[in-house]
Amino acid sequence: MKSKELKAENPPVDRLSALRFHHIIYLCNGGILSFHFKIIYESSESLARLGEIQTPHGCVNTPVFMPVGTQGTVKSLTPEELHEIGVEIILANTYHLYLRPGHEIVAKLSGLHRFMNWDGPILTDSGGFQIFSLARLRTVSMSGVTFQSHIDGSTHVLTPEKVIEIQEALGSDIMMCLDECLPYPTERGRAHKSLSITLDWARRSKKARGGDGSALFAIVQGGMFKDLRARGIDELRKIGFEGFALGGLSVGEPRELMLEIASFTVPQLPREYPRYVMGVGTPEDLIELVSFGADMFDCVIPTRNARNGQLFTRTGTVNIRNASYVSDSEPIEPGCRCYTCRNYSRAYLRHLFMARELLAYRLSTIHNLYYFTNFMNDIREAIRAERFLEFRKEFYSIRNTL
Amino acid sequence: MKSKELKAENPPVDRLSALRFHHIIYLCNGGILSFHFKIIYESSESLARLGEIQTPHGCVNTPVFMPVGTQGTVKSLTPEELHEIGVEIILANTYHLYLRPGHEIVAKLSGLHRFMNWDGPILTDSGGFQIFSLARLRTVSMSGVTFQSHIDGSTHVLTPEKVIEIQEALGSDIMMCLDECLPYPTERGRAHKSLSITLDWARRSKKARGGDGSALFAIVQGGMFKDLRARGIDELRKIGFEGFALGGLSVGEPRELMLEIASFTVPQLPREYPRYVMGVGTPEDLIELVSFGADMFDCVIPTRNARNGQLFTRTGTVNIRNASYVSDSEPIEPGCRCYTCRNYSRAYLRHLFMARELLAYRLSTIHNLYYFTNFMNDIREAIRAERFLEFRKEFYSIRNTL
Repeated sequence: MKSKELKAENPPVDRLSALRFHHIIYLCNGGILSFHFKIIYESSESLARLGEIQTPHGCVNTPVFMPVGTQGTVKSLTPEELHEIGVEIILANTYHLYLRPGHEIVAKLSGLHRFMNWDGPILTDSGGFQIFSLARLRTVSMSGVTFQSHIDGSTHVLTPEKVIEIQEALGSDIMMCLDECLPYPTERGRAHKSLSITLDWARRSKKARGGDGSALFAIVQGGMFKDLRARGIDELRKIGFEGFALGGLSVGEPRELMLEIASFTVPQLPREYPRYVMGVGTPEDLIELVSFGADMFDCVIPTRNARNGQLFTRTGTVNIRNASYVSDSEPIEPGCRCYTCRNYSRAYLRHLFMARELLAYRLSTIHNLYYFTNFMNDIREAIRAERFLEFRKEFYSIRNTL
Repeated sequence: MKSKELKAENPPVDRLSALRFHHIIYLCNGGILSFHFKIIYESSESLARLGEIQTPHGCVNTPVFMPVGTQGTVKSLTPEELHEIGVEIILANTYHLYLRPGHEIVAKLSGLHRFMNWDGPILTDSGGFQIFSLARLRTVSMSGVTFQSHIDGSTHVLTPEKVIEIQEALGSDIMMCLDECLPYPTERGRAHKSLSITLDWARRSKKARGGDGSALFAIVQGGMFKDLRARGIDELRKIGFEGFALGGLSVGEPRELMLEIASFTVPQLPREYPRYVMGVGTPEDLIELVSFGADMFDCVIPTRNARNGQLFTRTGTVNIRNASYVSDSEPIEPGCRCYTCRNYSRAYLRHLFMARELLAYRLSTIHNLYYFTNFMNDIREAIRAERFLEFRKEFYSIRNTL
């Protein structure tokens, strides 16, 4: 796994810095590019690696954190703000957009990119996680899943084929196969049966897709059973996909178990394809998963916590509602270059939260997404400089001072 | 009232266009300028007029509409967005900022401009309207007013002197004297007594103020009684202020009565000072009040209605939640140059509202404030071109086609 065969491709210039502009070049060319993944560098210290994902809407440098734009908007922000933060790719939720406004309406309005005015890459999830966490009265069969909308109780049937149709209608750059996401704990027999369904759905998803330059990723399930995870990977690899994701993590299991399953499973995902750990996580989770060789992550933590006044800093999270900030003229994190920290004090942010002002959620979201984006930038630079383990050590030592 | 003695001052160049950059020049010079009002042009068709208000934080072209930033934020927007919209001055509410976070905290954080990151002029109201509309258990005496906070029920006493102290602590560019704002209807005896209190408070306000370059405006009350209004103006003129405001309008009276009182009162306000009609109003109200010679307005209509999905267009207001917009690819108003109309469809805005997404409120607020700001720009250009009455006629004829 410490293979270096690709290292010779790296020019002596600061490749990481140059790479940051690749997606702009792609956009300027205006051409429709199809999906491609390239490993740029592999750490000699760990399984961590640098990659570059090319999509029809630009280039993404990995490891990458994808902000969640559930309903076709990263809550409270404009696309311009996402670009300013440095966000290269966002995630949108197939389940939500299918229910409202409906994929056909989005398609009629020229697709999700135009609809929400975001010109960068979009990954759409499969809806699996939402069906099993939000929807009501769901019944799963080999053919698909029947459920009631969490919005209005209406009944819907989603099949693997339908989920591909929806994602293609949205104009997704990276689509995910419909999967069954199990809760924790799930006993082995149930997990085994579920894995079979997910594998069958993956085959059907691949068959159903068109060929428009977008990618299709498979999702590995299997509960907390390593042998089931391994079998899932084998089968999915045989079917063949442009990327492989770990699903069914962060569903209620202890963090140690999540990391154990991930440390076992991530390195087994095909090396030459993007490895995506779905729905994870905290900065602590991200740095561990990167060390296992994971490339992509998404999570609502930075955006949701921001709206609750929980702000990320190098030394840990702060609750900006705390009375100690009432007349604090410092920014959330001194030295932070985000728009919020460059212009507003902790006292002002606290005031906005106490007064329930809409600007509170927006300024906090900007800061938290900047923190996560910048954190991933730092991780990539540390990998490239062969100081990732040192960076990880520093990361924990600063946080522990809290 | 159709005096032209100032017209000779106007250079033949497009003065209005040039004026738009004045405040930038002031800011670039970096100097603290004190308040000054200059009449730039007076219409020969009506009492409408163009003016320029110089403040310590820049120049304002009148007639002007001031967006409301009640709690130190124009709800959902950043100062950069206000500048992009073309907003030259905002209003902040003394009552709200006194209660939360408290004027002493704002002062400690270098004043309201720095606190909220807005470098343009700020007018702070007197708190009178809020005390009489929001606060509980209020009792008025000659010395001041005692009331309970609408936030936590705590008891407070505000005197004219205290209200000046608060506004000076906030760093206001234009302060207002504490007034008693009467509800509609109020019988004559009560209105008469109230006028006496407001006049006495105005005298005390003037005495209490410091001399830091900011302005102090008086508020004319007197209910719906023209003679009381006239007496109020006489007395306040004798005391002497940098501007004069009409208070106690749009408090529940029929629109016709509001316009009748305003058409009587506005022209009697001293010609050489800014005339400010408080808390008004719709585009229809604004164009009428401008024709009476009013210079300044504030109202929550564009911002509050935006958050309810009521959007202003040249042909009238639209409710963006309407099902007819579900797949409408047009912007709110075709041809509108606001950020929202340049980038988003009615269908997307409707979707954001239906999904209760925070971005809905923000994009709608941008559009409505752009509409009001642009409307005032158009009014000023029409006055300058001696086609204000024609502009007013066109304005109504387009709206009537709805």
